[in-house]
Amino acid sequence: MKRIGILTSGGDCQGLNASIRGVAKSLYEEFGNDVEIYGIKDGYKGLIFGEYKLMKPEDFSGILTLGGTILGTSRQPFKLMRVIDENSVDKVQNMKDNYKKMKLDCLVILGGNGTQKTANLLREEGLNVVSLPKTIDNDVWGTDMTFGFHSSVEIATNVLDCIHTTATSHGRIFCVEIMGHKVGWLPLYAGIAGGADVILLPEIPYDIDKIAKTLDNRIANGKKFSILAVAEGALSKEEAAMKKKDFKKARAEMKYPSIVYRLADELASRVDNEIRVCVPGHFQRGGSPCAYDRVLSTRFGAAAARLIREKNYGNMVGLVNGKIVPVPLSEVAGKLKTVPVDCEEILAAREIGISFGD
Amino acid sequence: MKRIGILTSGGDCQGLNASIRGVAKSLYEEFGNDVEIYGIKDGYKGLIFGEYKLMKPEDFSGILTLGGTILGTSRQPFKLMRVIDENSVDKVQNMKDNYKKMKLDCLVILGGNGTQKTANLLREEGLNVVSLPKTIDNDVWGTDMTFGFHSSVEIATNVLDCIHTTATSHGRIFCVEIMGHKVGWLPLYAGIAGGADVILLPEIPYDIDKIAKTLDNRIANGKKFSILAVAEGALSKEEAAMKKKDFKKARAEMKYPSIVYRLADELASRVDNEIRVCVPGHFQRGGSPCAYDRVLSTRFGAAAARLIREKNYGNMVGLVNGKIVPVPLSEVAGKLKTVPVDCEEILAAREIGISFGD
Amino acid sequence: MKRIGILTSGGDCQGLNASIRGVAKSLYEEFGNDVEIYGIKDGYKGLIFGEYKLMKPEDFSGILTLGGTILGTSRQPFKLMRVIDENSVDKVQNMKDNYKKMKLDCLVILGGNGTQKTANLLREEGLNVVSLPKTIDNDVWGTDMTFGFHSSVEIATNVLDCIHTTATSHGRIFCVEIMGHKVGWLPLYAGIAGGADVILLPEIPYDIDKIAKTLDNRIANGKKFSILAVAEGALSKEEAAMKKKDFKKARAEMKYPSIVYRLADELASRVDNEIRVCVPGHFQRGGSPCAYDRVLSTRFGAAAARLIREKNYGNMVGLVNGKIVPVPLSEVAGKLKTVPVDCEEILAAREIGISFGD
Amino acid sequence: MKRIGILTSGGDCQGLNASIRGVAKSLYEEFGNDVEIYGIKDGYKGLIFGEYKLMKPEDFSGILTLGGTILGTSRQPFKLMRVIDENSVDKVQNMKDNYKKMKLDCLVILGGNGTQKTANLLREEGLNVVSLPKTIDNDVWGTDMTFGFHSSVEIATNVLDCIHTTATSHGRIFCVEIMGHKVGWLPLYAGIAGGADVILLPEIPYDIDKIAKTLDNRIANGKKFSILAVAEGALSKEEAAMKKKDFKKARAEMKYPSIVYRLADELASRVDNEIRVCVPGHFQRGGSPCAYDRVLSTRFGAAAARLIREKNYGNMVGLVNGKIVPVPLSEVAGKLKTVPVDCEEILAAREIGISFGD
Repeated sequence: MKRIGILTSGGDCQGLNASIRGVAKSLYEEFGNDVEIYGIKDGYKGLIFGEYKLMKPEDFSGILTLGGTILGTSRQPFKLMRVIDENSVDKVQNMKDNYKKMKLDCLVILGGNGTQKTANLLREEGLNVVSLPKTIDNDVWGTDMTFGFHSSVEIATNVLDCIHTTATSHGRIFCVEIMGHKVGWLPLYAGIAGGADVILLPEIPYDIDKIAKTLDNRIANGKKFSILAVAEGALSKEEAAMKKKDFKKARAEMKYPSIVYRLADELASRVDNEIRVCVPGHFQRGGSPCAYDRVLSTRFGAAAARLIREKNYGNMVGLVNGKIVPVPLSEVAGKLKTVPVDCEEILAAREIGISFGD
Repeated sequence: MKRIGILTSGGDCQGLNASIRGVAKSLYEEFGNDVEIYGIKDGYKGLIFGEYKLMKPEDFSGILTLGGTILGTSRQPFKLMRVIDENSVDKVQNMKDNYKKMKLDCLVILGGNGTQKTANLLREEGLNVVSLPKTIDNDVWGTDMTFGFHSSVEIATNVLDCIHTTATSHGRIFCVEIMGHKVGWLPLYAGIAGGADVILLPEIPYDIDKIAKTLDNRIANGKKFSILAVAEGALSKEEAAMKKKDFKKARAEMKYPSIVYRLADELASRVDNEIRVCVPGHFQRGGSPCAYDRVLSTRFGAAAARLIREKNYGNMVGLVNGKIVPVPLSEVAGKLKTVPVDCEEILAAREIGISFGD
Repeated sequence: MKRIGILTSGGDCQGLNASIRGVAKSLYEEFGNDVEIYGIKDGYKGLIFGEYKLMKPEDFSGILTLGGTILGTSRQPFKLMRVIDENSVDKVQNMKDNYKKMKLDCLVILGGNGTQKTANLLREEGLNVVSLPKTIDNDVWGTDMTFGFHSSVEIATNVLDCIHTTATSHGRIFCVEIMGHKVGWLPLYAGIAGGADVILLPEIPYDIDKIAKTLDNRIANGKKFSILAVAEGALSKEEAAMKKKDFKKARAEMKYPSIVYRLADELASRVDNEIRVCVPGHFQRGGSPCAYDRVLSTRFGAAAARLIREKNYGNMVGLVNGKIVPVPLSEVAGKLKTVPVDCEEILAAREIGISFGD
Repeated sequence: MKRIGILTSGGDCQGLNASIRGVAKSLYEEFGNDVEIYGIKDGYKGLIFGEYKLMKPEDFSGILTLGGTILGTSRQPFKLMRVIDENSVDKVQNMKDNYKKMKLDCLVILGGNGTQKTANLLREEGLNVVSLPKTIDNDVWGTDMTFGFHSSVEIATNVLDCIHTTATSHGRIFCVEIMGHKVGWLPLYAGIAGGADVILLPEIPYDIDKIAKTLDNRIANGKKFSILAVAEGALSKEEAAMKKKDFKKARAEMKYPSIVYRLADELASRVDNEIRVCVPGHFQRGGSPCAYDRVLSTRFGAAAARLIREKNYGNMVGLVNGKIVPVPLSEVAGKLKTVPVDCEEILAAREIGISFGD
């Protein structure tokens, strides 16, 4: 009898259930009645506190299209290694104990960067783990693509599309805040797909006067409206030059609920047109996964089951040049896949006249 | 030769182009080459400053599905009657002059409440006008339905749907701001359709402690997440008791960019769960009209052409009990169709357990 | 203790689950622990064969957006009254027996015309019933609107939209078959919303030569493409003149799988352009209900619970002039709400130049 | 002064206008007033008959989201090289003459396999050409991805989603015909994404009895419904064994309008459940491109402009391992990128239990 645990951790995104289904269906196809799958509740939290249940095949039926995660999720349980919390709970030890209590052969872990780091810690602690790269940010190192990303791009693009019709009818400037605190793949793709005129990324600090000039030039060329796709983590050149500590402090004291409001204010004193703000927020991580993500999730899920079959533990499943590959968790942990400022997407965007505010 | 002018005024919304197309196609079908249609640019502004052009039949082709307005729009040109501006432009006189210059038989005006009021003014000044009720707010008096409303409800509902999957996965509280400054039809409908747990409307002042209690009760019943559909114009019972002047002042001094941020703050000190904010904003007025709005716009457009054929001027086209009727502009002007607090939709919402925070 | 049974019968459509949820949530809100809801499986079949189960409140959670029906459905169990089948099962007696076995206070029935007829039969047999009007065809007598209709219109319209871009790029003629065997509300609404050039309804027999002429005229006017929205039940003037028996025989012997293929063939010999066929089929009844249908379903569901509370049995819940009303099942049974050939929607469609092939 | 011609040829698909826009915007950014772009009407036909016009920058504005092609398209003008038609028109000579007449520096050609072949012919004839790979089939050799593909997958997946809710509610078998005559990428991806139980591809001939057995097994396991994603070009093992000539003859004489109807008939005599057919047809190629395709189209368009800048003619722009590369037309012409029967997507699909009918 194979015993497999499965958990989803970190911010939810589209494709989690599709991936879970891929893992489960493959395991049942391969092992039939000789496999038991344990669903662990609310991410690592469930592993720490022993909240899990034996799943049935029908639990994985009909979830391909479902947003969110049927297992629940929670934030990362610790930032530091092996934290013992205020109630003297040794989190890592608890996780190991519950792993043993369930008599698991392997633990399948779906999550983003923080989650991969913890997965690697558990590997180092001797647990068999296989992980999948989940995030709308597409910032997991070791894979060209994460599931959730393209679904999110689709939603953010749709927002930009709709804003477009209003912007053109009124001749207004719209600042749309698109998810991405540290990494700008999502605003970059949505910005290109949604026909943004300016895209602001965490990777390319902006110069507010250059942005104002870009908008003025558009007006001078008869284009009265403009749309800015602004990453949550967009920052000015001045901020980029700050020490990390000072930057964090400045942001914490910022009077605006998020950066797009500050940007709108900064622009209001520089351009004549009316400026409006749109903050779609978590809308971008919800709903049914797009077809692309469903196929990717299914492939990832089947590949995780394959690694379990082959007892090839300690890996994250990745997509590299269109092929599924196992990537050692030891290599993935602690890295971040940011947008190279000279990547092809940015070059193409610049070539068609999109400004990055730099 | 018939000469018909057409303009769209006020905030744009879905269905404007579908309505314009309905008017134009009907006129061309009826009068063939014996009609000239003048497109007036950017609402009343174009009429004041004489910016218009003779349209061709092909200009109205392929616009049924198009968001925004091909004619452009602008805000209401004056709040007071017959304003003479700082450049000594007599706006009303200019509009009358340009109407005569185009030798119009009738001016077709598409817009919301403010627009209808100005349309009525032009009628009083002796112009032949026919108007159509446009707005995502569905607050135009004299018609059961405006075009734009159901398209907007669809978008806001979609936002709530997506937020739902994140909310359930994380056990969080989400406050989603839905358009509606004075009137709550849109948040009411989207709230019901999107499965909101709490709906806050301008018409029903809220008690923050009651909302907090509702959320706590849900948690006590095992529902860790909650979704609040919050009208832009939601207000507390304390605010509702203020004098209008004091309320306006208080709002102008409010440190939050919009009400939903304040609400989130107020709740943060009262409930344990994490709270997130989503402000889809003008996203709700853009994009292609839904099928409902396209049919309604087509019917409204054809009806406007019929009124022109019958020289039955001075009316807004309305929908009453499923039938198209002409509604005298003199009756429409200056009124607002708010949500009755005991309307069937609210009663049904309460019956299935939705709270209105009161 | 209240005991309520609930079943869905006939073809599925969007909004069934939203309606079921509306009924259940209202009952639980009203009666709390003093109500038991029995879900009856696969429509009347479950009532005949005693397949049902006690539902829990959480069964009705999260189904607002879900297509299909969580209870399952089946076709009408009999065409004639009180049929005793080949296995000597007295269907009506069985239904009465199971109703008693469950000790029901009332049976809530969701379905279309056939379902309403059987609901009325059960009422005549002494059962307490309350019914809801479900169908994408909007052909239930006694209500202005059924749930499912607008969701379906949205889908069919989206098909026409997409076909449009291909049709215009290629200058082709497209015949799109839209659901509606006896009644044409769906093709009428989708046809108008989707910008069809010709709409063929069961209520308006067509003349193939007139259609060909319409298409030729369009080509002569520089419009190389045309789109036909064709009801499943579209029929020619010759067929309309046949005796019902002869018509049925002719159709049964027709070599085409459905009418749109015949139409395409008939046109192919009359016009030069290439002709393509599209049969979206049951696609039109599936997926998540649109916002309009969710609100309507919720209102209908709450109203059904209200009728139960008031012991006002024997009624279907209807929407008349925007208000919820109880409609005696005795009046509803056996009637059909067809499209009046002079209804406002058809008149408006003709006014903007849409042909009905007559 | 640079003079660039541009044409779209073959079946239309999503992303054509986005690509055209990418080419044009890049050219204008690079060359400003020193470039003239000539739009050639209806594909090669316009080049043969000299139908083209000088485009203006605003012609390329607002078309990013637009389905179809603003230039119009037509089928391949010849199957054989250098055909002289019944009116003694030497097509190739005409194309060369018009190229010279327009004084083009380069001709940008957007199209699928047939189009690339003709592009290569024109290259051999001495014209400067750069081409882009367009098709919903993703079957162009030399590129990992064509634009149109993912948009199409999204639509076909949505159809399968909606069919799902009906299929489950009724316990029926649905056969959905998905585009793909020779190559099955689209039904493969849509089938996986749409949760199909059986996928039939041109590349994997089916055994009808095996399909029937799969469906029976599902019923035996309590799954009363099944969904088949059937490529237009699906064929049986018997047909696959035929000589090409015999196969073509047999298909031409087939009494069904398309293969899915035959399959439904074949299954009807083998399984008990009701079977329904859905033929979404050209619906799959229309409408707005998805975000993925818009980004890809923009990158392709910018890359085409780059090749023109570098005078690197005679290439198709391709995407290989995530990078844009020029692929010599001489290598592309006449090849087809079919689905390898052991590709990762098929293996994953089999691993989660999807049958390919073989």
